[in-house]
Amino acid sequence: MSTVDELLENNRSFAADFDQGALPRPPARKVAVVACMDARLNPYPILGLKLGDAHVIRNAGGVISDHEIRSLAISQHLLGTEEIMLIHHTDCGMLNFNDREFADRLESKTGQRPEWEARSFDDLDQDVRDSIKRIKDSPFIPRTDGVRGFVYDVATGELREVT
Amino acid sequence: MSTVDELLENNRSFAADFDQGALPRPPARKVAVVACMDARLNPYPILGLKLGDAHVIRNAGGVISDHEIRSLAISQHLLGTEEIMLIHHTDCGMLNFNDREFADRLESKTGQRPEWEARSFDDLDQDVRDSIKRIKDSPFIPRTDGVRGFVYDVATGELREVT
Repeated sequence: MSTVDELLENNRSFAADFDQGALPRPPARKVAVVACMDARLNPYPILGLKLGDAHVIRNAGGVISDHEIRSLAISQHLLGTEEIMLIHHTDCGMLNFNDREFADRLESKTGQRPEWEARSFDDLDQDVRDSIKRIKDSPFIPRTDGVRGFVYDVATGELREVT
Repeated sequence: MSTVDELLENNRSFAADFDQGALPRPPARKVAVVACMDARLNPYPILGLKLGDAHVIRNAGGVISDHEIRSLAISQHLLGTEEIMLIHHTDCGMLNFNDREFADRLESKTGQRPEWEARSFDDLDQDVRDSIKRIKDSPFIPRTDGVRGFVYDVATGELREVT
């Protein structure tokens, strides 16, 4: 049995107990969270988010590229969110390699070099600051007063704000 | 008090009860989930995922672009995941507008037209199939036997596989 089959078994139990019906589409707390995909970072309990509260956007590193600007523009223009919370975390894999090494590795395995960059970084706080700046600099994100960035400590469960 | 300040209050309670210490970085169940950012879709209870089990990648629509290929390539090459689960959902906002309308709207509000596309779609199942194909066609994702796609029903909690 594959892992996905096991997760589908879990879904059958979940759906059998599901009794709340459909919630409204716009996030109730008008917030969008952008976080790393890391397995040790679950934004819901960390932030006390309930179903329906927030958009959650995630990728390797929790970086802000045009693709996150796309999601955040849809979130604010079409679904009414007003605040943005960025979450990087300690012990992040993105601190352990550099973009050229990773591209070399893919090229040596596949014969092709990716056109995209891996977007690794070597300073967590600086990448959070750069990410906030990318959002504030975008003309497509109308509400940027409430953009704040944090580092989550995977060993203690604490969020620390990056200023 | 802003929403983010309220969520930080929640984090203080969470961290006070956090007692498991740091988990290993590679996802325990060797799976990466790619899902829509929608506020009504929380992958953890839906799939019975525990902390440390899976990478979770999310964006508006749960689409697969080069940016998701980047995250999935890092997930498989550097962190050992082997299966990929795509999750779109019913009542998705991406079904309710088209890319040109959204670009027109941003242009009329900001004077600039985005270089990126909004990636709206009008057929959920077809977008899931197209997303699976994009992953399977990428040279940078080595393990594609375990790529499967689903539609989550926000009214019932059920996952339906797209075949």
